Amino acid sequence: MRTILAALLPLAVSAPADEGMWLFNRPPVEPVKEKYGFEITPEWLDHLREASVRFNNGGSGSFVSKQGLILTNHHVGAGLIEKLSTPEHNLLEDGYLAKTPADELPCPGLELNVLRSIEDVTRRVEAAVTPDQSPAEASAARRAVIAAIEKESMDATGLRSDVVTLYLGGAYHLYRYQRYTDVRLVFVPDVKAAAFGGDADNFEYPRYCLDCCFFRAYVDGEPADTPDFLKWSATGPAEGELVFTSGHPGRTDRSNTLEELKHLRDEGFPYRMEQIYRAETVLRAWADRDRENARRAKQAIVGTQNGRKAIGGMLNGLLDPAVMAAKSESETELRATEAAAFDEVARVQDELSEIAVRLDLLEGGSAFGSGLFYVARTLLRAEAEAEKPDGERLPEFQDSSRLSLELDLFADEPVYKDLETVRMAASLTFLCAKLGADDPLVKKVLAGKSPDERAAELVDGTQLDDIPLRRQLYENGVAASDDPMVALARLVDDEARALRAEAEALDERDAQAHAKIARAKFEQQGDSVYPDATFTLRLSYGVAKGYGDVPWCTNYGGMLERHEKQGGVSPFDFSPQWAAHAGDLDPGVPLDFVSTNDITGGNSGSPVVNRAGELVGLIFDGNLPSLVSDFAYTEDRGRAVSVHSAGILEAMRKVYGATRILEELGF
Amino acid sequence: MRTILAALLPLAVSAPADEGMWLFNRPPVEPVKEKYGFEITPEWLDHLREASVRFNNGGSGSFVSKQGLILTNHHVGAGLIEKLSTPEHNLLEDGYLAKTPADELPCPGLELNVLRSIEDVTRRVEAAVTPDQSPAEASAARRAVIAAIEKESMDATGLRSDVVTLYLGGAYHLYRYQRYTDVRLVFVPDVKAAAFGGDADNFEYPRYCLDCCFFRAYVDGEPADTPDFLKWSATGPAEGELVFTSGHPGRTDRSNTLEELKHLRDEGFPYRMEQIYRAETVLRAWADRDRENARRAKQAIVGTQNGRKAIGGMLNGLLDPAVMAAKSESETELRATEAAAFDEVARVQDELSEIAVRLDLLEGGSAFGSGLFYVARTLLRAEAEAEKPDGERLPEFQDSSRLSLELDLFADEPVYKDLETVRMAASLTFLCAKLGADDPLVKKVLAGKSPDERAAELVDGTQLDDIPLRRQLYENGVAASDDPMVALARLVDDEARALRAEAEALDERDAQAHAKIARAKFEQQGDSVYPDATFTLRLSYGVAKGYGDVPWCTNYGGMLERHEKQGGVSPFDFSPQWAAHAGDLDPGVPLDFVSTNDITGGNSGSPVVNRAGELVGLIFDGNLPSLVSDFAYTEDRGRAVSVHSAGILEAMRKVYGATRILEELGF
Repeated sequence: MRTILAALLPLAVSAPADEGMWLFNRPPVEPVKEKYGFEITPEWLDHLREASVRFNNGGSGSFVSKQGLILTNHHVGAGLIEKLSTPEHNLLEDGYLAKTPADELPCPGLELNVLRSIEDVTRRVEAAVTPDQSPAEASAARRAVIAAIEKESMDATGLRSDVVTLYLGGAYHLYRYQRYTDVRLVFVPDVKAAAFGGDADNFEYPRYCLDCCFFRAYVDGEPADTPDFLKWSATGPAEGELVFTSGHPGRTDRSNTLEELKHLRDEGFPYRMEQIYRAETVLRAWADRDRENARRAKQAIVGTQNGRKAIGGMLNGLLDPAVMAAKSESETELRATEAAAFDEVARVQDELSEIAVRLDLLEGGSAFGSGLFYVARTLLRAEAEAEKPDGERLPEFQDSSRLSLELDLFADEPVYKDLETVRMAASLTFLCAKLGADDPLVKKVLAGKSPDERAAELVDGTQLDDIPLRRQLYENGVAASDDPMVALARLVDDEARALRAEAEALDERDAQAHAKIARAKFEQQGDSVYPDATFTLRLSYGVAKGYGDVPWCTNYGGMLERHEKQGGVSPFDFSPQWAAHAGDLDPGVPLDFVSTNDITGGNSGSPVVNRAGELVGLIFDGNLPSLVSDFAYTEDRGRAVSVHSAGILEAMRKVYGATRILEELGF
Repeated sequence: MRTILAALLPLAVSAPADEGMWLFNRPPVEPVKEKYGFEITPEWLDHLREASVRFNNGGSGSFVSKQGLILTNHHVGAGLIEKLSTPEHNLLEDGYLAKTPADELPCPGLELNVLRSIEDVTRRVEAAVTPDQSPAEASAARRAVIAAIEKESMDATGLRSDVVTLYLGGAYHLYRYQRYTDVRLVFVPDVKAAAFGGDADNFEYPRYCLDCCFFRAYVDGEPADTPDFLKWSATGPAEGELVFTSGHPGRTDRSNTLEELKHLRDEGFPYRMEQIYRAETVLRAWADRDRENARRAKQAIVGTQNGRKAIGGMLNGLLDPAVMAAKSESETELRATEAAAFDEVARVQDELSEIAVRLDLLEGGSAFGSGLFYVARTLLRAEAEAEKPDGERLPEFQDSSRLSLELDLFADEPVYKDLETVRMAASLTFLCAKLGADDPLVKKVLAGKSPDERAAELVDGTQLDDIPLRRQLYENGVAASDDPMVALARLVDDEARALRAEAEALDERDAQAHAKIARAKFEQQGDSVYPDATFTLRLSYGVAKGYGDVPWCTNYGGMLERHEKQGGVSPFDFSPQWAAHAGDLDPGVPLDFVSTNDITGGNSGSPVVNRAGELVGLIFDGNLPSLVSDFAYTEDRGRAVSVHSAGILEAMRKVYGATRILEELGF
């Protein structure tokens, strides 16, 4: 795949690119040795793996002390921090520092995972599928054997056990994780410093963000014992220095065929962007009405804006004819030998297109934008799925997923019914726009009312914001419930499930075709090939390096300049605490830096380490030119963006007086 | 039509509703006399007509002194005021008061019209169309006779002469206007007071906006002589008082059939909302990057936000099944006698649906969002159309439109190439989303580049921001020009024109069918029927009246309360000038009020007058429940929102010290 992807680069580079999101059981030992003269040893790798943390809300982190102290991004923790806030104590606006261990704040609903082992189970999974099975049968068989493997592993080890599909079905690896569910907030800077420049500067560079925050993992009410933590480097990286990241890139599509990319470019991404533009506008309009609205909707807006730039950037990449031409050329050879598989992939895409919108609306839930609908559907399906053998259930209801499911379902988070109503009304209106108000299912959903009226009725009427009631319905079933949100979930469930089954059969055909293509690639290129990202632990390497006229790092002096040039108004303003101490900050201390590491969404919060395995930075973003890397890595101008380890120390000392944490870090 | 529309009201009311946007040559003498005991005399009506002003950028106004002083809304003038602003002197932010006549600022590109006479030319227009003509021939014949009527009238009177199509083709009236093209800014409050609450409070009520501004019409360099001005009432209306508005409602769709409303509900409005959500998000994101960006994009953002609420409100109305059911019932009788016409209308809608998106993108220009593309197309078509006889030209290039066209084309307004690039890139991306990047025309438009690259190339490369060059190309033709924007206009012109021709043929069929339905209505209901709005002068009547718990008027005390409750942050903040004098304002003086007058977009800036013909208020908005009135008037909760005449005086005195203007108004 390296060879193929290299062809995608518009500019040929003499040395091989710093490309790759490498599996920890297939690390890039040779290329790193050749290019940088550094030997990745098993011990070095094991230490890094044990120090790496997955945030199940979609990010990464690392242990930075032996007492379970975890470093991640502010924006990874922000959703949790918002939930810990009240109108009186807004931890996003004010930041938070736990003065003593007793002040560390539990975060309900958060699960962290630390990868303990990887086992290749490809043969066992493949053996379950036979050529005479229909796609639906093959999919069910694969799901059943995966569930069995996961259950066996969990029963045997007590560890969370996930079978991960790699190479779009070319391989299956069993990942076993230590699970931490008692996680507490230790220190977080105020959001104005963490996300300085807000959406305006998001994905841009130069950048001036202190996008960090600290949690602590607890076990049995005591700080977790984490001997394999990363030692903090006070100096950070030098320009041109080799650095590694260890994190959980969520998804890439580098193995996609040209036809798949065309569907994404012309259908998938435009549809998603349409939803994002709508959601961002509706949420901002509601937030603008009232200060308390703004507080309640803040994180939802930030999430939408981030998605707009991320997906918009990927779409822009695909709209570059040069990228598509290179992709086309790169697959010419494989297409010649694997024409049938390529054609099958294309056919699957065409068939998926026909159901994609209905699938997203009804099964993806885009028609029902309130989190309370998700609760209702989960309760409804939990009851129905419980009656089936484990391997035949929808994966999220299998025994191996139960703990995570319940953690999520019973998380005691604030539910703002006014915000839920706004989201529900917007999504029901979107449903009408997409299917037409005379669609029979739409008419049933709206029950003779306008989307606004119906949304108000559903959200006002439901009692699913009551956690004890959720527990009771989860334990006793919802058959007797007349909750309106449960009734809605029931109303659409047949069609939603049918669409999902249809999509799964198509996915299975897609997986089989891609597995064929992947095998052909292996034959051509050996296993010096990394798979597309799957929100599992990956290693990447690169160097701290600018591009064009853009310097490799920024500093506090640059932050103050941008603040002043923009008149100090939002999103370039400072919190009172920051404003009071800005003069104490050394303007020469580095704040953010860029490197050529191959990352994507999900890598947020990943540690950046040097050859000695010391923490020198904290990944928090890619720049705009890097966004096309979902389809093809480029180091021409594409860069990973990190907070500099020295920058974090400077602010903790001069602005936040976080002495207790600094001491724990060894300072 | 009154009878039919009454059936649309969900709640029957005992007295006839205050419905109607009445023609000045068919005024509602009887209903007003019956319900309110007031007799509308020809003199009363002529005086009001002579005092009423149309803003050709899409609003209304009135003369309020005998020296051509004009009152309208801040938001009607805002686009002009923005163009008069510079980074150093931001007239939107600071407001503006011309201390002496010499300080009154010319507004390039603005044309005002005052209606002088109306003549019914229905028979002559209808006589030009014969049953044997195809729709395209009939359309051309009608266009030719209309152009001839307009040219004859203009030659004979020197007045702007427009034939207006009423009742969707049921009647044709010739409107003759006095034209004013030298218009100067006299006084405008700062935008924070004018649009207090910004988008957040737009279309909401209670409301606290000083949405006013004053221009003056000049003739031959001197203030215009306007003896028929409206006398300003210092007390304004009392609760329950009968009031009239005289203004230019832009468009209503009350004659549309159920099938047409369904197309709007399921296709037209969702498509428009998709564009609005995209435009608002893209513009706000760009504005957020930099203070100067924000200044440049301000009015474009306000326009988009206003459209979002207006069209979103209409869509919400159509998504109310009760509204659609009432519409269906209301047309049952007519449908029985005019089935063929109703079916034809439905067929036309289906055929329009097939070309609607391409039509909007290529001919509507949604694919090419820069104003410089509009300039290029105008130059290209001006040359081509000049070779045809007047009656065969596209209407905007006929002799009767030449002055307005040239005024618009050569207006010396700032062009911000950075903003133009952002808009062009967003619209080219939208083009790709809608037609797919592999569409042959899309590929030609993009010329092998991504939308972003292509937008930059087009906007950087064009020289059409140079007004003398525009004049030169207009006079000598663009055949020899290699300007990239002209080349783009040329590239899409064949398909754009073909789509327009197709749409016009469909419109013609639609007009013929609607004319049949309209004639059947006349037979049923006589001519006590007002036509849908056409951006021509209309009279409406109503009373100053609250709804539910909502009071009929607000005051300065309420404004200060809302300011304080929202912490004084944008959009609830005050300008320095306002903040300095807020304490001087009498909290009991009325600021805004609501009335049952039947208005819509285009009525912005309309005077509200009492029985004595005195100015008591200034229309600036409808509330959210009124938005469905595009399809069916409702006075249950729907209301017109005005600035109170006493509120304007109070601010001019206490905050702005506008003594010169107050004296001219008689105070």
